[in-house]
Amino acid sequence: MYIVGLMSGTSLDGIDAALVRVHNSGLDTDLEIIEFITYPFPKDIESEIIQSLSVETSNVQLICSLNFKLGKLFADGVKEVCKKANLPIEELNLIGSHGQTIYHQPLAENHFVPSTFQIGEAAVIAHDTDTMVISNFRTMDMAAGGQGAPLVPYTEYILYRSETKGRLLQNIGGIGNVTVLPKGASLSDMEAFDTGPGNMIIDEVCRQLFGINYDKGGKIAKQGKVNADLLSYCMNHPYIMSAPPKSTGRELFGKQYVVKLLEAFKTLSKEDILTTVTMFTAKSIVENYQTYIFPKTDIDEVIIGGGGSYNHTLLEMIQSLLGNSIKVITQEELGYSSESKEAVAFALLANETYHGNASNVPAATGAGNAVILGNITYPPRARLN
Amino acid sequence: MYIVGLMSGTSLDGIDAALVRVHNSGLDTDLEIIEFITYPFPKDIESEIIQSLSVETSNVQLICSLNFKLGKLFADGVKEVCKKANLPIEELNLIGSHGQTIYHQPLAENHFVPSTFQIGEAAVIAHDTDTMVISNFRTMDMAAGGQGAPLVPYTEYILYRSETKGRLLQNIGGIGNVTVLPKGASLSDMEAFDTGPGNMIIDEVCRQLFGINYDKGGKIAKQGKVNADLLSYCMNHPYIMSAPPKSTGRELFGKQYVVKLLEAFKTLSKEDILTTVTMFTAKSIVENYQTYIFPKTDIDEVIIGGGGSYNHTLLEMIQSLLGNSIKVITQEELGYSSESKEAVAFALLANETYHGNASNVPAATGAGNAVILGNITYPPRARLN
Repeated sequence: MYIVGLMSGTSLDGIDAALVRVHNSGLDTDLEIIEFITYPFPKDIESEIIQSLSVETSNVQLICSLNFKLGKLFADGVKEVCKKANLPIEELNLIGSHGQTIYHQPLAENHFVPSTFQIGEAAVIAHDTDTMVISNFRTMDMAAGGQGAPLVPYTEYILYRSETKGRLLQNIGGIGNVTVLPKGASLSDMEAFDTGPGNMIIDEVCRQLFGINYDKGGKIAKQGKVNADLLSYCMNHPYIMSAPPKSTGRELFGKQYVVKLLEAFKTLSKEDILTTVTMFTAKSIVENYQTYIFPKTDIDEVIIGGGGSYNHTLLEMIQSLLGNSIKVITQEELGYSSESKEAVAFALLANETYHGNASNVPAATGAGNAVILGNITYPPRARLN
Repeated sequence: MYIVGLMSGTSLDGIDAALVRVHNSGLDTDLEIIEFITYPFPKDIESEIIQSLSVETSNVQLICSLNFKLGKLFADGVKEVCKKANLPIEELNLIGSHGQTIYHQPLAENHFVPSTFQIGEAAVIAHDTDTMVISNFRTMDMAAGGQGAPLVPYTEYILYRSETKGRLLQNIGGIGNVTVLPKGASLSDMEAFDTGPGNMIIDEVCRQLFGINYDKGGKIAKQGKVNADLLSYCMNHPYIMSAPPKSTGRELFGKQYVVKLLEAFKTLSKEDILTTVTMFTAKSIVENYQTYIFPKTDIDEVIIGGGGSYNHTLLEMIQSLLGNSIKVITQEELGYSSESKEAVAFALLANETYHGNASNVPAATGAGNAVILGNITYPPRARLN
């Protein structure tokens, strides 16, 4: 069936809408990605979202109204992606909408209980598209004692699990994160942890030393040499070789960390610094594999996604550190773009709920059980009996 | 099947939970009310709700957390009503939860769009009771252009519609409201409007002149005489005989109105005043029927609900004004308590959604279409295929 997955991230650049065609569910899922768009937010909506995110500027009337406004925009995003794909909206079967997170409280704090809050009214989406909507995927995982995140491991499981190959799914966004998918894995065999920095340090060095936002294709890093002292300085950060489960945020490897590093190694050439921090990202990933994954799990392939998968120098470094027995490939090479990954994930999670299947991964979220995610909103005039 | 209906009103006295047994749906619905409780709010929750209701004191973190806390309390209410009825919760089939309204914006205002906002997380209710939940009934009606209220007319339709009798459902709460159900009515034949004051004036006169909250059973009003001048003074209020559709709020017949009335008629005895304002309530109801309903619709019965149905003097006055050809009966006499009315209504609306039936009444809410109300949340581990 045809499903649109909708995602609106914390970057507030707009609504990601992926139109997919899916057959079956669970491990039998057969997925074809038909179209993907990012539908931008009008400026006034962006500013209302920003106002809603903060305790100081949010209020009940604003949130009440914005929930309905966003529902309308999500519906527009669905219509737009169908139009671009020349799919008459009457042929669309289902919408999976993550919504816009305006608050996420993973742990209790003072008198606040663990909870999460996504908006973009499903009734409005269902009404304006005349299509069934599944939304609010994170709440049931939290009701079951989980942190409501991450939810992508299940879709990684159904897309990448193999009976013949052990696989690692390495995402390289700001932070690096790996999901382990042993050969013939069941859901309970999966684990996931943050390997350390992804593009954060590379990008910050680009900004500080070159006045650019990132090292496109890894071209600059290709020109320099790795400095052993700087590399071991970086690798000695206590996070890198600490044992999983572990997760890191932007605070450990942010701007402050880079400013301090540049001060300590200011005699090196700019290119050598960039080459070395690129190698640090590669080495922090691979040494985590060698220490914590390879001793217990046979791995045949590493599949790399996220912005870092476009940095060829970084990929070559990872491949050379791993040796030739393990193949490094990108999501893009498998036909799955990194951009559309999350929107596609929510189309697939909607498909699972539609089929009555649980789709959180308790080992990833900490939930007590596997549970069916999301609320179902019928199209306004469906008659099901 | 067994259904619990949950309602938490603006009075904040707690969660109303009604356990009902229902067979079939729509006009074939067969309803038995098994148990009803009001499960009180802890003081801290009541104060968090009050904080959430106002633009000045609400914020996103508070609402995010309170949504989950209320979900847990609603689940506790479900368990409690099942326990009181000796129904093992495993035998419960469905929960219909209205939730706690924290904001309702029926019309656009500045940059706020028409919208409504109920909390009490359905995923938490479904998880903690292991039962399917249908919630958020008002949003789809608003998506279809309605005001999201009132939603009770549909359940009045399925409970009281008759092939052989024309009926009026008169609710006497603070305000009086009538729903017209012609003999053999279809949904589009229904209308509803506010007749004028219900108990508001009677209760305020009790407070001002007798220092009591209400005239229990109508005992005091039974002792006095109707004063013709005061009665015509009251009946001359422009709202009373204005043509429907019309609706009134607490502001027209509130404390100020009563203070002015008492000043103008201070020579009358306390009992005569109370008897006369009781007659005013009766006469405002009956004259609206005689002017706006009886000329076009044959009516056989008036069914009275709300607190006013316990005021025997008021009921006798209504009966005597109507004459003997129209029978006045109370909801209670038909086996439906006024207290449980709304909780039962949301059990029945859940039943309709479960069966894929639309259940708003466009003539009552202003929606462009009849639509299926609510979101469905599966119990966490159901397998439906």
